[in-house]
Amino acid sequence: MDNAAYANELAESMIRAKRELRTVPGEKRDAVLRRVAAALRERKAGILAENAKDVEAARGKLSDVMLDRLALNDRRVDDMAKGVEQIAAFRDPVGAVLDSRVTEDGLKISKVSVPLGAIFFIYESRPNVTIDGAALCLKAGDAVILRGGKESLRSCVALANVVREALEAEGISPDAVRLVDRPDHEIVSMLLKRGDALDVVIPRGGERLIRAVVEQSVVPVLKHYKGICHVYVDRDADMAKVLPIVVNAKAQRPSVCNAMETLLVDRALGAEKTREILDALKAANVEIVGDEEIRKIDPSVGAATDEDWDTEYLALKLSAKVVDGVDGAIAHIEAHSSGHTESILTENAATAEKFLARVDSSSVMHNASTRFSDGGMYGLGAEVGISTDKLHARGPMGVDSLTSYKWVVRGNGQIRK
Amino acid sequence: MDNAAYANELAESMIRAKRELRTVPGEKRDAVLRRVAAALRERKAGILAENAKDVEAARGKLSDVMLDRLALNDRRVDDMAKGVEQIAAFRDPVGAVLDSRVTEDGLKISKVSVPLGAIFFIYESRPNVTIDGAALCLKAGDAVILRGGKESLRSCVALANVVREALEAEGISPDAVRLVDRPDHEIVSMLLKRGDALDVVIPRGGERLIRAVVEQSVVPVLKHYKGICHVYVDRDADMAKVLPIVVNAKAQRPSVCNAMETLLVDRALGAEKTREILDALKAANVEIVGDEEIRKIDPSVGAATDEDWDTEYLALKLSAKVVDGVDGAIAHIEAHSSGHTESILTENAATAEKFLARVDSSSVMHNASTRFSDGGMYGLGAEVGISTDKLHARGPMGVDSLTSYKWVVRGNGQIRK
Repeated sequence: MDNAAYANELAESMIRAKRELRTVPGEKRDAVLRRVAAALRERKAGILAENAKDVEAARGKLSDVMLDRLALNDRRVDDMAKGVEQIAAFRDPVGAVLDSRVTEDGLKISKVSVPLGAIFFIYESRPNVTIDGAALCLKAGDAVILRGGKESLRSCVALANVVREALEAEGISPDAVRLVDRPDHEIVSMLLKRGDALDVVIPRGGERLIRAVVEQSVVPVLKHYKGICHVYVDRDADMAKVLPIVVNAKAQRPSVCNAMETLLVDRALGAEKTREILDALKAANVEIVGDEEIRKIDPSVGAATDEDWDTEYLALKLSAKVVDGVDGAIAHIEAHSSGHTESILTENAATAEKFLARVDSSSVMHNASTRFSDGGMYGLGAEVGISTDKLHARGPMGVDSLTSYKWVVRGNGQIRK
Repeated sequence: MDNAAYANELAESMIRAKRELRTVPGEKRDAVLRRVAAALRERKAGILAENAKDVEAARGKLSDVMLDRLALNDRRVDDMAKGVEQIAAFRDPVGAVLDSRVTEDGLKISKVSVPLGAIFFIYESRPNVTIDGAALCLKAGDAVILRGGKESLRSCVALANVVREALEAEGISPDAVRLVDRPDHEIVSMLLKRGDALDVVIPRGGERLIRAVVEQSVVPVLKHYKGICHVYVDRDADMAKVLPIVVNAKAQRPSVCNAMETLLVDRALGAEKTREILDALKAANVEIVGDEEIRKIDPSVGAATDEDWDTEYLALKLSAKVVDGVDGAIAHIEAHSSGHTESILTENAATAEKFLARVDSSSVMHNASTRFSDGGMYGLGAEVGISTDKLHARGPMGVDSLTSYKWVVRGNGQIRK
């Protein structure tokens, strides 16, 4: 089969699979997920053996960080299984009555949550996203095409097969979960034109991957470019709160998108307190680059370039800048934020409310660490990802974001006058 | 200014305008709308004079139907003013607390509706969409770029100026509402690449226009390709309900997207009842084309081609087909529906529920006319349009669909453990 025929077959199988899944009850979808969890544990040795082949083949070609992302081990497979069980235990997102009314002439109108349909999940080297993505989609009653990184193909095939066999064991067509098992990019490009078969694309990975998907796709995209999160320390901040929050926002887990990347300090806070903040960060092994004014306060700080204000380090590094009060902070954020999460630290309620109202990011915070921006914290259950878009879902996306709704109208012969 | 500079200036003005509008309170936005309504009435003569020039210039170039869409008159301007007042009277869609919780460590988390930001509204010949689109966007706190058909440019300029002056009178920058006053398509193409400035595109018009927008845009699109609505008459239907519903669904207002385009009749209903339905439609001046079996029942019916099953007539014409029960109806709908609205007519509750569950359209109905698929009927207030997408908004879209939300987190020094 050539790539065009292959892509077509994948898309057509989604049209069939989403029709079938639409009416599979939640208990049955959860039973599939519990089977997946059990099979992951039972077949761990086989999965790890396939993964070892991927790691072996990638050695020397990938960085150590990427190799670590690619590698599975006992604990990581157990974590996947646990994750799937947690998804199974969550309430069914399908069939919820979101709104209802009875019209004057007796029509009963209700808005009911339904699966989105078919999802195209594109991701990079972590093979566990295969399980995570498939489980979230099945929870929401969606069929899914999974497309992992080519270096993790053997691992992804082994994991996808676990899910497909669990579907079959529950009497559901295994084609509810398909894996693109050819590396060619043109297959992805062809699928992105299949607005007739696919309802949404979710690309997870670097900004370049995501921009390429958006550029090509006629299918709507749920996306997250990057997280350039800011913490602004206002003149009226309480240093007893500032120091722990700033260190937590940057250093608790620097590799994630809700970690702080830029620290903004009010000029009116003064040199002494600013130095205290910088010292606390340095004590937490954070490398700091700053603007001229920061470097006057602490000459040991490196010089920030223009690029730094738009850089997501995902590491123990941050950029720091002196601004003129909350208006200066908002202006900097408007110019450089990725719309993810920004926090203001102040004891002045009016200043805080101004910041919360004017900053247009998916999460805006007062006296809290940006690290709280998370689906679990927000009570959304399993997290599908983070959206920096404003349509459909914004910020942390729960499994509800993989559903749509339809209007169900029950009448008794009514006609429109 | 060349077109590239012009498009850039439009996009940049949206970035500024949405920042300003974000914090303009609802009362003030409503005051703008009431000023617009008053000015439309006061300045009717001038608006009609500009419109007359458009109509004059288009005469001979546009069909009579298109000329009628282009033309304004006393009543149409009054209707616009009334429409704007209705939008002003509706509740503020911004600032609603959609969800809230307090975490164990005392973080107050709320999900609050906010304006989407900047909207790009593309439409065809009806100049009244200028007012309608601007009013809906302002109601939701959104800035908007309006782009009407080139044949209605003078009318659109006159109408957009009414809105811009109303904004200024309330101390808001008039650039919250911009009109593309050059006809060049490349300006549209350039704007569709400005994902940094624009948050959503809403194209209204023919399917070709909409597909071209989707193909080019990196900005998310809210769209409605077409409405191929089906009515399925089941073997267990009550003819006393069937005849009025079928005639209403097709003939009450044939030019709208929720009118029936295809009638599906259960084979088991029998020739006599089927003939009765066809006769009722013919009595309402409906032209029918049918498959072979329909033509055996009524030889006066024309022959349907393959294309007919995918055609939105928007006229007193429909296609009719005999199917094998509800499964046959669902199979035909799955192959040909545009996902807008489908209705089943039956007294058998189990058959009805099967249809409602399995048909994946934005509205599914039982014993009711497809004409009820409408934002007003569903209690959504002013209607922005209809979405046949599944992301963000599906089916009739109220002004809420022009909002997004953000997460507001209020803490007291919390850090993540």
